[in-house]
Amino acid sequence: MTIFDKLESKVQSYALSFPVTFHKASGCYLYDEAGNEYLDFLAGCGSLNYGHNHPVLKQALLEYIGNDGIAHGLDMHTRAKGVFMQNFQDAILAPRDMDYRLQFPGPTGTNAVEAALKIARKVTGRTNIISFTNGFHGATLGAVAATGNSYHRDAAAVPLTNVTRMPFCGYYGQDADTLNMMDKLLSDASSGIDRPAAVIVETVQGEGGLNVAAIAWLKGLEKICRKHNILLIVDEIQTGCGRTGTFFSFEPSGIQPDIITLSKSLSGYGLPMALVLLKPALDQWKPGQHNGTFRGNNHAFVTAATALDHYWRDDRFSREIEKKAGILSHRLKKISDQAGVTQLRPKGRGMIQGLQCKNGAIAKKITGRAFARKLIMETSGNDDQVLKCLCPLTITEAELNEGLDRLATSVFEVLDDNLRKVS
Amino acid sequence: MTIFDKLESKVQSYALSFPVTFHKASGCYLYDEAGNEYLDFLAGCGSLNYGHNHPVLKQALLEYIGNDGIAHGLDMHTRAKGVFMQNFQDAILAPRDMDYRLQFPGPTGTNAVEAALKIARKVTGRTNIISFTNGFHGATLGAVAATGNSYHRDAAAVPLTNVTRMPFCGYYGQDADTLNMMDKLLSDASSGIDRPAAVIVETVQGEGGLNVAAIAWLKGLEKICRKHNILLIVDEIQTGCGRTGTFFSFEPSGIQPDIITLSKSLSGYGLPMALVLLKPALDQWKPGQHNGTFRGNNHAFVTAATALDHYWRDDRFSREIEKKAGILSHRLKKISDQAGVTQLRPKGRGMIQGLQCKNGAIAKKITGRAFARKLIMETSGNDDQVLKCLCPLTITEAELNEGLDRLATSVFEVLDDNLRKVS
Amino acid sequence: MTIFDKLESKVQSYALSFPVTFHKASGCYLYDEAGNEYLDFLAGCGSLNYGHNHPVLKQALLEYIGNDGIAHGLDMHTRAKGVFMQNFQDAILAPRDMDYRLQFPGPTGTNAVEAALKIARKVTGRTNIISFTNGFHGATLGAVAATGNSYHRDAAAVPLTNVTRMPFCGYYGQDADTLNMMDKLLSDASSGIDRPAAVIVETVQGEGGLNVAAIAWLKGLEKICRKHNILLIVDEIQTGCGRTGTFFSFEPSGIQPDIITLSKSLSGYGLPMALVLLKPALDQWKPGQHNGTFRGNNHAFVTAATALDHYWRDDRFSREIEKKAGILSHRLKKISDQAGVTQLRPKGRGMIQGLQCKNGAIAKKITGRAFARKLIMETSGNDDQVLKCLCPLTITEAELNEGLDRLATSVFEVLDDNLRKVS
Amino acid sequence: MTIFDKLESKVQSYALSFPVTFHKASGCYLYDEAGNEYLDFLAGCGSLNYGHNHPVLKQALLEYIGNDGIAHGLDMHTRAKGVFMQNFQDAILAPRDMDYRLQFPGPTGTNAVEAALKIARKVTGRTNIISFTNGFHGATLGAVAATGNSYHRDAAAVPLTNVTRMPFCGYYGQDADTLNMMDKLLSDASSGIDRPAAVIVETVQGEGGLNVAAIAWLKGLEKICRKHNILLIVDEIQTGCGRTGTFFSFEPSGIQPDIITLSKSLSGYGLPMALVLLKPALDQWKPGQHNGTFRGNNHAFVTAATALDHYWRDDRFSREIEKKAGILSHRLKKISDQAGVTQLRPKGRGMIQGLQCKNGAIAKKITGRAFARKLIMETSGNDDQVLKCLCPLTITEAELNEGLDRLATSVFEVLDDNLRKVS
Repeated sequence: MTIFDKLESKVQSYALSFPVTFHKASGCYLYDEAGNEYLDFLAGCGSLNYGHNHPVLKQALLEYIGNDGIAHGLDMHTRAKGVFMQNFQDAILAPRDMDYRLQFPGPTGTNAVEAALKIARKVTGRTNIISFTNGFHGATLGAVAATGNSYHRDAAAVPLTNVTRMPFCGYYGQDADTLNMMDKLLSDASSGIDRPAAVIVETVQGEGGLNVAAIAWLKGLEKICRKHNILLIVDEIQTGCGRTGTFFSFEPSGIQPDIITLSKSLSGYGLPMALVLLKPALDQWKPGQHNGTFRGNNHAFVTAATALDHYWRDDRFSREIEKKAGILSHRLKKISDQAGVTQLRPKGRGMIQGLQCKNGAIAKKITGRAFARKLIMETSGNDDQVLKCLCPLTITEAELNEGLDRLATSVFEVLDDNLRKVS
Repeated sequence: MTIFDKLESKVQSYALSFPVTFHKASGCYLYDEAGNEYLDFLAGCGSLNYGHNHPVLKQALLEYIGNDGIAHGLDMHTRAKGVFMQNFQDAILAPRDMDYRLQFPGPTGTNAVEAALKIARKVTGRTNIISFTNGFHGATLGAVAATGNSYHRDAAAVPLTNVTRMPFCGYYGQDADTLNMMDKLLSDASSGIDRPAAVIVETVQGEGGLNVAAIAWLKGLEKICRKHNILLIVDEIQTGCGRTGTFFSFEPSGIQPDIITLSKSLSGYGLPMALVLLKPALDQWKPGQHNGTFRGNNHAFVTAATALDHYWRDDRFSREIEKKAGILSHRLKKISDQAGVTQLRPKGRGMIQGLQCKNGAIAKKITGRAFARKLIMETSGNDDQVLKCLCPLTITEAELNEGLDRLATSVFEVLDDNLRKVS
Repeated sequence: MTIFDKLESKVQSYALSFPVTFHKASGCYLYDEAGNEYLDFLAGCGSLNYGHNHPVLKQALLEYIGNDGIAHGLDMHTRAKGVFMQNFQDAILAPRDMDYRLQFPGPTGTNAVEAALKIARKVTGRTNIISFTNGFHGATLGAVAATGNSYHRDAAAVPLTNVTRMPFCGYYGQDADTLNMMDKLLSDASSGIDRPAAVIVETVQGEGGLNVAAIAWLKGLEKICRKHNILLIVDEIQTGCGRTGTFFSFEPSGIQPDIITLSKSLSGYGLPMALVLLKPALDQWKPGQHNGTFRGNNHAFVTAATALDHYWRDDRFSREIEKKAGILSHRLKKISDQAGVTQLRPKGRGMIQGLQCKNGAIAKKITGRAFARKLIMETSGNDDQVLKCLCPLTITEAELNEGLDRLATSVFEVLDDNLRKVS
Repeated sequence: MTIFDKLESKVQSYALSFPVTFHKASGCYLYDEAGNEYLDFLAGCGSLNYGHNHPVLKQALLEYIGNDGIAHGLDMHTRAKGVFMQNFQDAILAPRDMDYRLQFPGPTGTNAVEAALKIARKVTGRTNIISFTNGFHGATLGAVAATGNSYHRDAAAVPLTNVTRMPFCGYYGQDADTLNMMDKLLSDASSGIDRPAAVIVETVQGEGGLNVAAIAWLKGLEKICRKHNILLIVDEIQTGCGRTGTFFSFEPSGIQPDIITLSKSLSGYGLPMALVLLKPALDQWKPGQHNGTFRGNNHAFVTAATALDHYWRDDRFSREIEKKAGILSHRLKKISDQAGVTQLRPKGRGMIQGLQCKNGAIAKKITGRAFARKLIMETSGNDDQVLKCLCPLTITEAELNEGLDRLATSVFEVLDDNLRKVS
């Protein structure tokens, strides 16, 4: 009986899917205590876009720690924080002509979402928030109210209030114009939908099953927000930092969110960090009003600043991602074609793509087989029916293909098994 | 104009009190970019009980990173996590005969509180939570509802629900028995106080102004909880990890909380980490029900495990803290005696003590003068009227006395000024 | 300056539309203090289905009062209550093969809705309720949360919670299947729509603008409720007591609601009375749990029992209503045809029909002109754009035609005026 | 099996205590179908201050109905309403130098409370309301949140929000100053008590167990409200219309509530009616914002106007009530003295007095014995332990003494029984 069996709460989940004890990690690989090597198509749920323990970031971190750089800085000014902010301004905001204030909330995605919802409500004086079917925004009480998953909602064990749900792009099928519906509800004084402070949206719903918001839909959503004087929050926690090719996933749409939330891969090294970007006019916080102890995790600032410097000074990394995303699309389509699109449907965009199985049971079998082949990957979606390829963006093409080979083999093993059972 | 002036949100607060840019830190000292040395009586608001960049922890961390130890592990089993859990069992739980499950929520105090409130509500099927006047439990929506401070409550910009407030120990003066009041309300079917899932309490209210729960009061509170079948949550986020002398601040009272929240100094290095301890019967979570990306911050596990090993295998550290706490009490009393107890009243216990000024304006002046003397300290309380000495527990007696000298000088400068103005 | 000007709250509304002081009333007519006679196409917003001061009911009431029949009976058994219940059983429930328990809530529609929502939540253990766009269910806090109108919602001045809105029949146009949408949301574990205790629906949305739920839609709604194990509440407050031809408006659809709310015309004399019908298995109230002082308004029981006896022992009254409804439909269609359907669109069914104008301003002008012709009628809808003919069901054909003549003249006066302005 | 057994919901409560079918009523007497005469010490829970079917009111009502006076008037101006308002101005407001606007909500007490809470929140822009331990304000969702009784609260089956509970006068014993506690909480920015829109209070808690707010306490409460800029709502639903001697029960204290709610005995005949009095500056309603069908129950206006005219043009009725209240006090004290104050403690004031038994079981036995003696009375309090004498104010001294004789006999029968069992 391990210490985990003895002491750890039953709330643990990934450990159930991958029942080994990991020890080391590098690039796309995880290693367990016995020295086995696993290819990582999970990447800390999108927190390791630059892979595990990236050598350049690692070096910067070791130096910083070695030199007694301040580790914990509350929200005080530190050199490391200043460098991060300057790099963020130079590499990210300025080239995109974006004018935002940076708020450092508690260092997790859900804290960023809580801050975003608070300031939106505070500034507008309205309490309602619109979020979307299958959206995921976090587990603390404010964020989970905006989250669609009943598994997480039920855990709150109180009614979740002040959030109204709208259908995401394509939710009612390709022919139904979900934006028109939303506009009608917001234009109708008796619809029963209270005018919201803000809309919060993901461009690709990661946990929700790799549902993609079309570019036209995002543009239309922005237009509705402007028309009804509603703030637009884009939750880039899983899609940001290059996951879809560009630094922000909304860039191809040209929309200008009022508030943007970032976390996960922001530190680049898997260290806890979160950031809220606010249009300057919205920065109506009073000092310390949204506080927290670990807003100044300087180790994360160091690796984050280094990652920005290393990857985002030009568009080479973006182009590299797009190339790999092309490979990923191509191979997923091939698998889908071979299996039949009713069996496996490709979903997602950029480097957040996957395959939708007929149900969660099939998907679970496939990820189980994949793990037996030392490929770590997970499922998402309302029935956990979507196989999710979320590998580091720094993966080599060879590694990517190797992983997809393992996935393909696992897929057909399971589908053939099912076929055999049926026949 | 610095990058901070240009880009950072107005939500920043400590930076306003300490308008320099820090760079390095070691033990009790912070250093700004110009090389000035500051004595730290703030200690990351209690997150740096072992001081900045403790050399033993630093060495362990450098080795771990250097060896490509896994940094980000979601909630997967990792060797570093296992070592932390084993050390926590051996050094903390076993010697105290405590049987708890360990839940790792998102790595901040507020996430720990959110998890604690959720599971309490889920297990009991009740929605109400009792928290206390002047209590502070975090800034996310679930936690801030349990927080007393209107400054933080107002920021939520929605009504805060499902929490009922009770008077803390001594709130209505020493003669009023606040526990009797609470018992009466809970025993009266028409009081309008819905039977709560849990009570959440701090043994010393850090943000609330160093209000101390008497041992008899804590025992009485536990008795009320048992009588009415209510869970008892002790929030040890600021008081835990030795701040009051013992590892848990409730130890002298002998109570047995159902749920305990820990964070702040848990990692020992200022790294984000949080822990919820649950009586085994309460561990009714389903896998992943309370999730989050950074629950497996392995760097924090490494330093946390090392800190437990280094400081908590025997009671030497506790005795050391008690000795310093004695010095602190003695000197604060002397200052109070000299100024008159109506001017400055000593408050707190262990190494979380301070002086209550007549109002926040005076306290603010004093911390300003202290900063000019390169002493970093803050205020707390409902009017920010309490000077809070929250230095690292590893401070030497000489450093402690030096800090208190600077404080005393600052205090009397301000009080004398005030006196002169009056006369 | 009248006593009304001096003392009455600005909350009064009908008095603004009809600025005279009424004194007497009989059948379809209201009389003001000066003796002017007004034809009543408002009928107490549907509370006077049998007209004002119906002679048979009046006689019964005078006798009851004259004989010192008990007027106020709390919820005690009284002979008058017993007679009402027996008549309700014999004339309404038994012939329709309906098995329900009768709950007498406070004597207003909103109290009936509050009771219905409470028992639905209590029995199912769920908190969410589904109500529909443009629905109206009352002004107390529980009922107004289910109401769509933002004018009434805003008056609550707190966030309205525990209700989710769905699109009513035809809300997104005739091609959009709103039931499919609802079914998808309820079938999707990540939709963010918490499984509700109940759905509350009107078969014709009176305040919402005479929107009619198609029979197939009602059947489909019932099917969804059964599939997802959700209670079905039909709010018959405005549509019940024969307004649409049958006693309950849902009868033509053949659905079997779990809970039915009645009020308005139930007493038959305009006296305050309300009734909740519960499937026996749902009658899980404890004694007095939903209480109120005026649940035993025996004067209302007397007139209600008399009305049931007089009108509902056979189907003659229903056939009579249908005949008049036919006249109403025919004439409204003629007006619409003459004006053009884009100018005036007929809406509603049975004796709750009207004409939708292009906007509320036009409709208001028309009702103003009608009042000048001594025709009392009001508007409804999200912009108050729908002219609502809600005359007593006992109106003669001659009176009905007379009223419609006055309406038609008023309509074309206003439309012609508008035309003149445009040209 | 009666029709009640077959059809009525289990929510009925009084019918359980008085298992007969009533038929007629006059003055202080109820008559069942068999012709038995019962002395009424319940008076429709305070709705029949002038007794059943008062001949003067009855005559006015018969005439009104006979002459086809308008029965149902929505919120339109009617002569009957005007007369009521004029009489209310002349007999009640003017002599007391009170300047208020009259709002007619739905005709029940709970609707009046809902209206009062809404306008208080709307005008102040705050959501919180303070209500008191053991307070009762109604059963609809907004009102029940302000109600203390868990039996009624639980029936809501959703968390009740936006209300904070404070201890009523004397709640913690005669030595504890509950107003000081309230003031401290409201003055402390970190108490966790959000500044409320309003305080709602009863001067005597009828359902709560005849707890009396001392005059000094009411004055102090008003002072706190003014100090913190909080509206003061006095709920006079049970205590108004002379129950304590003066028309409003707060008159002896000299306070000036911002809002007053009235219902129950307002119509004088037991007919549904409710009234909200608003200081003119608070009348910020928009037309129809708080609506309802039966706001214009003209039969109630007629009897209410007559009652005002008959009883409240001078102070004779008040003096008469005071005299009877003196008899009631005297005799209850005698019973208490004889039984021992630990067995039976007198409570209440004016004509809302009673005896507190050791527990609800004893009280229930006593009211059972009383009913066997044809005395109708009920219990109240958090354990239903308080015998409540709530007879019509028009009772003769002989009838009063007769009822108290029956009560006394019932009391000692039960106490002696208990004694015998013990010995």
